Amino acid sequence: MKSEFDLSQIKSPADIRQLDEQQLKQLAAAMRRPLLDKLSAHGGHVGPNLGMMEAIIALHYVFDTPEDKIVFDVSHQTYPHKMLTGRMEAFTDPAHYDDVTGYTSPRESEYDLFSLGHTSSAVALASGLAKARDLRGGKENVVAVIGDGSLSGGVAFEGLDYGATLNSNFIVVVNDNDMSIAENHGGIYSDLRLLRNTNGTADNNLFRAMGYAYRYVHYGNDIPSLIKAFREVKGIGYPVVVHINTMKGMGLPVAEAHKEQFHFSAPFDLKTGAPLSSEPAGVDDRDYSDIFADTMTELMHRYPEAVAITAGTPGVIGFGPERRRAAGAQFIDVGIAEQQAVAMASGLAKGGARPVVGLASTFLQRAYDQFSQDIALNRQPATFVVFYGSMFGMNDETHLGFFDLGLLSNIPDLQVLAPTCKEEFVRMVEWSVEQRSIPVVVRVPGGDVLSDPSVKLLDDYTSPAYDVVRDRGNVALIGVGTFFPIMREAADMLAKEGVEVTLINPRTASQLDEAVMKRLGDYALVVTAEDGILDGGYGQKVASALGTSPVKVVNLGLPREFKNRYNAAELQQQCGLTPRQIADTVLRLTQH
Amino acid sequence: MKSEFDLSQIKSPADIRQLDEQQLKQLAAAMRRPLLDKLSAHGGHVGPNLGMMEAIIALHYVFDTPEDKIVFDVSHQTYPHKMLTGRMEAFTDPAHYDDVTGYTSPRESEYDLFSLGHTSSAVALASGLAKARDLRGGKENVVAVIGDGSLSGGVAFEGLDYGATLNSNFIVVVNDNDMSIAENHGGIYSDLRLLRNTNGTADNNLFRAMGYAYRYVHYGNDIPSLIKAFREVKGIGYPVVVHINTMKGMGLPVAEAHKEQFHFSAPFDLKTGAPLSSEPAGVDDRDYSDIFADTMTELMHRYPEAVAITAGTPGVIGFGPERRRAAGAQFIDVGIAEQQAVAMASGLAKGGARPVVGLASTFLQRAYDQFSQDIALNRQPATFVVFYGSMFGMNDETHLGFFDLGLLSNIPDLQVLAPTCKEEFVRMVEWSVEQRSIPVVVRVPGGDVLSDPSVKLLDDYTSPAYDVVRDRGNVALIGVGTFFPIMREAADMLAKEGVEVTLINPRTASQLDEAVMKRLGDYALVVTAEDGILDGGYGQKVASALGTSPVKVVNLGLPREFKNRYNAAELQQQCGLTPRQIADTVLRLTQH
Repeated sequence: MKSEFDLSQIKSPADIRQLDEQQLKQLAAAMRRPLLDKLSAHGGHVGPNLGMMEAIIALHYVFDTPEDKIVFDVSHQTYPHKMLTGRMEAFTDPAHYDDVTGYTSPRESEYDLFSLGHTSSAVALASGLAKARDLRGGKENVVAVIGDGSLSGGVAFEGLDYGATLNSNFIVVVNDNDMSIAENHGGIYSDLRLLRNTNGTADNNLFRAMGYAYRYVHYGNDIPSLIKAFREVKGIGYPVVVHINTMKGMGLPVAEAHKEQFHFSAPFDLKTGAPLSSEPAGVDDRDYSDIFADTMTELMHRYPEAVAITAGTPGVIGFGPERRRAAGAQFIDVGIAEQQAVAMASGLAKGGARPVVGLASTFLQRAYDQFSQDIALNRQPATFVVFYGSMFGMNDETHLGFFDLGLLSNIPDLQVLAPTCKEEFVRMVEWSVEQRSIPVVVRVPGGDVLSDPSVKLLDDYTSPAYDVVRDRGNVALIGVGTFFPIMREAADMLAKEGVEVTLINPRTASQLDEAVMKRLGDYALVVTAEDGILDGGYGQKVASALGTSPVKVVNLGLPREFKNRYNAAELQQQCGLTPRQIADTVLRLTQH
Repeated sequence: MKSEFDLSQIKSPADIRQLDEQQLKQLAAAMRRPLLDKLSAHGGHVGPNLGMMEAIIALHYVFDTPEDKIVFDVSHQTYPHKMLTGRMEAFTDPAHYDDVTGYTSPRESEYDLFSLGHTSSAVALASGLAKARDLRGGKENVVAVIGDGSLSGGVAFEGLDYGATLNSNFIVVVNDNDMSIAENHGGIYSDLRLLRNTNGTADNNLFRAMGYAYRYVHYGNDIPSLIKAFREVKGIGYPVVVHINTMKGMGLPVAEAHKEQFHFSAPFDLKTGAPLSSEPAGVDDRDYSDIFADTMTELMHRYPEAVAITAGTPGVIGFGPERRRAAGAQFIDVGIAEQQAVAMASGLAKGGARPVVGLASTFLQRAYDQFSQDIALNRQPATFVVFYGSMFGMNDETHLGFFDLGLLSNIPDLQVLAPTCKEEFVRMVEWSVEQRSIPVVVRVPGGDVLSDPSVKLLDDYTSPAYDVVRDRGNVALIGVGTFFPIMREAADMLAKEGVEVTLINPRTASQLDEAVMKRLGDYALVVTAEDGILDGGYGQKVASALGTSPVKVVNLGLPREFKNRYNAAELQQQCGLTPRQIADTVLRLTQH
């Protein structure tokens, strides 16, 4: 469908409410073209945004936004919403592509109610908006849009369970594209399938069972069908679910065909779908996802009871479709359900299996209680591999990797290892799977994959055993994980400048090596650097332990702040974390 | 039903498998008598254990424990299980009452699979046991027993959702007593009611919708009915839910009639249900639950948009049935669903309401992601009041109050206040509800309620403003919350001994007062004391901030350990946290 729709005229949803349904279809077609251009040139969440184009147009057409409130779960599907709410230019003009983030943000627009990037919370948030409306006698509609795999997260269920008890307007739009990031997993999806296959008429209806009225829209990319359904529920006086069956990747054939690959994509060729990046392929090009997957695959061969577990993000841990098939029963995707992944690992370990859970730093915080109660308190020998737990990882304010270190390393009886290079990473994962006595976290180093064949590997990482790599002078540099090679660079600089220092790889981020601490009490200066916020982290433990010694202690790391779309190199500089700055700190504090 | 059953002969479940159904009924009657004696004399979870007596007998009768695995959710209903599994004496002989804990514990028995006290995780844990069994080709039954309100917790749903995908034996017993701790809340409970009212035949069946086979037992306290149902599912090759309708408090008329009051009870008179404690009632007897409820009730009068929120534990925050009725729409119980409570508070604040969520320290950790993402990142002005966040609070290893401080105080943009007495507590809660700019946590002080009419209250607690209560000498004592009055005692002792010190109430546990820190750099010694583990806590922040100053810093607090049924006074002594020990530490380190 070609049209000469002038998108620059769309300044707010009010501008589309005069259009007829035919024009709205043209609008969708007109919006899809620049959106495809941006997605392919710039990267982003491809499938979710293409799939929700029509629904978002229909929502803003029917509901009186911004008075009516729409909360988009996970919010990575809101590019069309941004286009309709005053931010069209960020999608039509490459010079303005970076004016907007990939998620809703109240700083960008009053139409964006929350900064929201973790999944499954929209219904809970919207239930609060609805209750607040009722308390002040308001009349606006409150709409939560959830789906694309988010339904399996526990807080989604908690929100649905509570929302059903509201005796007032509460509209939940379930975007059912039969996909999570990868394929859907879990019992609820069999019910969604049944509902799709029966045009919404099956007796067995999860939403009705939970107390919701229910409407089904089979053609969830058909604007007239959507408008009809949304009009029927607008102003409704009780909780209702509108189940819409959408096509993930709609309008881009390669994305429709390869839904997992195009859930999120780096820049790609619009015709072929091939990545635009021109990095040459080679043996040493493996990233930590590949390295983990290779290591894990070998361990699964060695131990038939070893299992890899992901909570809906198999790509993060290097398990694409082929590897998943090869792993068979030894690979588990629990869907977006981090609490399940961690608690299940406890059950697996108790039952004699060797579970290894791979989690992104920002999402593991959803399972803190399970780490504490089900894993640590029960001392189950499960392994957790933390990806993107680094300032050199994801940089959206909703997806920061700064916080996991302080979170996990303060749980009793949980060993948090911080490898400094790929050899150490592989060894630590192997050791953890081999041993049967304690729960272990292995943090994937940030930044480029570094090789250090000289790194000293251990048979056993149960107890803290710091590696004093260089033992000179009265200044010690302790570099945790990612920051060990950076500390080594600083030490090398200082050596060239005639100042010899002690260099330490602590291996663990959760424990102090008492013997080393005792020695450091007699030093002039100890500098720690870690890949996360300082508060609650490793360095503060060192400062406290050395509090009554005369030695000076400097803790380097990040401030306790949410950062948004920061530049990692700039942040490193701001925090005094470059090798040159670290060397200068040493020189300043030792009056060299 | 009277019987002369010799309970001392029951050493393990094998000893009951020879009995006929009539004898099993006699066994239940015989077990209920000493159980009632212990519950009334000793206190404990009354209703849950009385209600599950018959089901637990039937489970151990039908299933071949310990080969077959039973995971009890929350596990506060496992007293009958303990009686049947080698621990009878702990219920029949008062001298042995304290031999067992109130929860399952693998240290006590091989029949206890996990240390488990937080709710809702049993299905997830059992799914791991089932998967591990399948990996090694085992044949045992895996049974999860969940209910008594736990179903509303998100991880219960995550577990059910995943469990439905197991193509093997997986049995979920849903204990439906139509109650949580207080009444049940949420849409799922309307379905459970429908199922009860239709003898399990309703088309709208949440469990079938999630992919489970389903059986209903209407008389969930009738042993033959239970045995029949459990026999039908024993050895089943796919996931099944057995929904049993039990009577909470069964066999104790006051507990049957007052289910909320007798969910958990301190020692009480078996006939009347009246508490045995003889504390005289009086105006000054209010505990912090009462004080909070009084304060909140007043705030709700002042602000019609103020709402109190609990996640299934209204008693913890002082809202018994009468106060709940009085609060009407301004009181919300979301059920056992902490994530919902916290995320909903964000929505409420965004919608213009003034939400105040009361949470027990040990349970708030289930909502860390919501604190971080939905509240702090979105800077919503919601108030969180943390109860039992203290070493002087609950002392079961599953319910410790040591960890919330490090958890919450390291989240950016979240002000964590630590009042030192009831006047300061009330003022901080009031201020937080009045202000509209930041999210605030107020930690209830531990131990007895203390009054300090001289405490300096502030108009605004947004920025850190330490109260230097006494400003003398070159030693400073900083007492956070509970530990401020203890530090004052230490300071008084030292003064009597001729050593004048500076005494500081920092008011906040999450922020440093830079001006005060700068001054402290010139001191000889700074001692901090806080009511939680040291790692990730307040004192380590002080030590780090003063790391390059010559001042010595001593951080006092608890070690990073799970403690079980500890004695608080002994623990305080072990950690050097008594006033005398603190004074001695000062004398030792300043060579007085």
